Amino acid sequence: MKVRGFTASAAAAGIRKQGRLDLGLIYSQIPAVTAGVFTTNLVKAAPLVIDMERLKRGMAQAILVNSGCANACSGEKGRAAALATGALAAKALNIPENLVQLASTGVIGEPLNVAAFERAMPQLVAALSPDSFATVAEAMMTTDTRPKMVERSADIGGVTVNFLGLAKGAGMIMPNMATMLGFVVTDARIAFPELHHALTSGVNRTFNRITVDGDTSTNDTVLVMANGLAQNPWIDDRAAAYFTTFQEALTSVLRDLALMIVADGEGATKFITIRVSGAKEAGDAQRMARTVANSNLVKTAFFGEDANWGRILAAMGRSGVHFDPEKVDIAFNGVTVVKNGLAAGGDAEARASQALREKEITVDITLSDGNAREEIYTCDFSIDYVKINADYRS
Amino acid sequence: MKVRGFTASAAAAGIRKQGRLDLGLIYSQIPAVTAGVFTTNLVKAAPLVIDMERLKRGMAQAILVNSGCANACSGEKGRAAALATGALAAKALNIPENLVQLASTGVIGEPLNVAAFERAMPQLVAALSPDSFATVAEAMMTTDTRPKMVERSADIGGVTVNFLGLAKGAGMIMPNMATMLGFVVTDARIAFPELHHALTSGVNRTFNRITVDGDTSTNDTVLVMANGLAQNPWIDDRAAAYFTTFQEALTSVLRDLALMIVADGEGATKFITIRVSGAKEAGDAQRMARTVANSNLVKTAFFGEDANWGRILAAMGRSGVHFDPEKVDIAFNGVTVVKNGLAAGGDAEARASQALREKEITVDITLSDGNAREEIYTCDFSIDYVKINADYRS
Repeated sequence: MKVRGFTASAAAAGIRKQGRLDLGLIYSQIPAVTAGVFTTNLVKAAPLVIDMERLKRGMAQAILVNSGCANACSGEKGRAAALATGALAAKALNIPENLVQLASTGVIGEPLNVAAFERAMPQLVAALSPDSFATVAEAMMTTDTRPKMVERSADIGGVTVNFLGLAKGAGMIMPNMATMLGFVVTDARIAFPELHHALTSGVNRTFNRITVDGDTSTNDTVLVMANGLAQNPWIDDRAAAYFTTFQEALTSVLRDLALMIVADGEGATKFITIRVSGAKEAGDAQRMARTVANSNLVKTAFFGEDANWGRILAAMGRSGVHFDPEKVDIAFNGVTVVKNGLAAGGDAEARASQALREKEITVDITLSDGNAREEIYTCDFSIDYVKINADYRS
Repeated sequence: MKVRGFTASAAAAGIRKQGRLDLGLIYSQIPAVTAGVFTTNLVKAAPLVIDMERLKRGMAQAILVNSGCANACSGEKGRAAALATGALAAKALNIPENLVQLASTGVIGEPLNVAAFERAMPQLVAALSPDSFATVAEAMMTTDTRPKMVERSADIGGVTVNFLGLAKGAGMIMPNMATMLGFVVTDARIAFPELHHALTSGVNRTFNRITVDGDTSTNDTVLVMANGLAQNPWIDDRAAAYFTTFQEALTSVLRDLALMIVADGEGATKFITIRVSGAKEAGDAQRMARTVANSNLVKTAFFGEDANWGRILAAMGRSGVHFDPEKVDIAFNGVTVVKNGLAAGGDAEARASQALREKEITVDITLSDGNAREEIYTCDFSIDYVKINADYRS
């Protein structure tokens, strides 16, 4: 499956280390309607500041992405370096500079090595191909153990529109924004307000529902480029069925990418869904699920395959959500371990321990205060998380 | 040094495991003015609920404390068991039940084993001695690697008043309340309002400034008992110098205990002070210092002895405090690694890496927004933290 008009390529530019793919380029043959969401961290890396300025016009034609250097906390030099790399790409592609979006990930505190970009650029542009998106997913990786790519299509008014999504991200993942790099290209024809709305609502339902370690990066970026080459009927009305179809397809791409990130969380051995039901309001359910999902004690218990529901109740109790502890049920993969706030007894713990040997675990927390329900996706907290982060310079 | 009228003892009651001290008793020969602060967690263990009821009269004569079982999330059975153990102690001491304060730590989700208390009680009461406080500190330990005890004295109107403090706590330590068990006995003569004020303000400046893992326990309790046997001039006026002297002595006991807890944090290899200066308001400085102190990425970097200031800036940026990233200085043990938001350059990183080999590290974060300054105390995040919490059932 291809997305009409989009090509990609990657190169081993030697930005931080030699001999591994670390530079990627995504290109649309015509300017694409483009929307973005960026980190909520006050400390924003140089490329994000530039991207946000450029996206005011809602248009882009290329994304230049590198690993090895985040170009964050790098001051004027960092900004100049980001602009210089964008200019190199624009010149090589023969497009205006302000149609190039920039994304960087890696070590904080150093500006980009522009010379490395300059050496790699001719080859990078020459290699552009509709079949090379997977190599860009690889070039984006830092502590990721595998590249993350999703393809999807949808029918808009009898026309098949295509989506291709890429993501990276394994640490500094916190449920307060996109929290990684995610790029989606589509040949759908859609107006900017609808694209922006579909992206922000989709991110809110997907990337904003995952957490690995509660840290929000300085470089989180999600971009979606829609070049319209599918020539589907215009999607320009948020109340129309076309928009809903588009939004659902985009959200499903974002969700798959988000879940891939959690499953590849630093040191993760388990994929965990924390589901809170019976809450008074959705905000309550979400806050409680997040507090549980971010608890180091809960996460280490899952690593230890310990049906330690006491830590879950303790985390719920400090979430700031009001509830009746004596009307709480908790189940692990369908095995009820807590009934009305007390140990379920019998062989429940033994069966729960068995259930926790699974790779995918759903924790069902049921309150008695209403009908709201929310899910947060996370992973366990392992010895390898500490090893990775004690050794890796991010 | 002794505290007039106070005795203590400990026993191996076999509450969860055989052959280790797990039950402690602290006794005052006359009823003592007593103040307490308790967890802010909505889920409160049975003994805390009873203690809070009993402390409405501001008086107690004994503290019965056990490890091995937190008696939290244990329902009516847990409450009945707590009351039963208190009644056993009251009967053996021949004092009213409502003068017994109860404290439990250990596994969540099971009621106390009352029979174990019953068997141990005669011996526990018979062994009461002014010299046995250290054994109570030992009986309170769970994942603590060492008992925590502090002695101090102060001069109030020409009379020496004495303080003795005990604490336990190594995990589930979060800067939102006392967050462990802490008991202070003193022979000072002080009125309840002054004692309560000295305790709450002291806890706020000490225990509420530490964090190990960001989790708040269901059982956190700090109690101070003042039996007045020193017969110092009454401390009953918050504006008087006597009160200030008392408050400073109590706070210094609380601080020493709090710092001992951090130094003995689960898996800790470093004692870390996060100091934020130059903030607009104290609340800002505290919030930023806490966010940095709770960041897993910052804490694993310290474990790795990595001068990774980028993670500190990233944590500052998501703290919710407004600041100018380009006017931030950061120093590790006096070695400036960030100047005006940028890498200090030269041999700063090499010298900082050297500094991080120390056991005690102070991180100085300087903003340019005002004169407020706050400190938070924490520890690093090691492989052993994960091992302890994947294996230990809390």
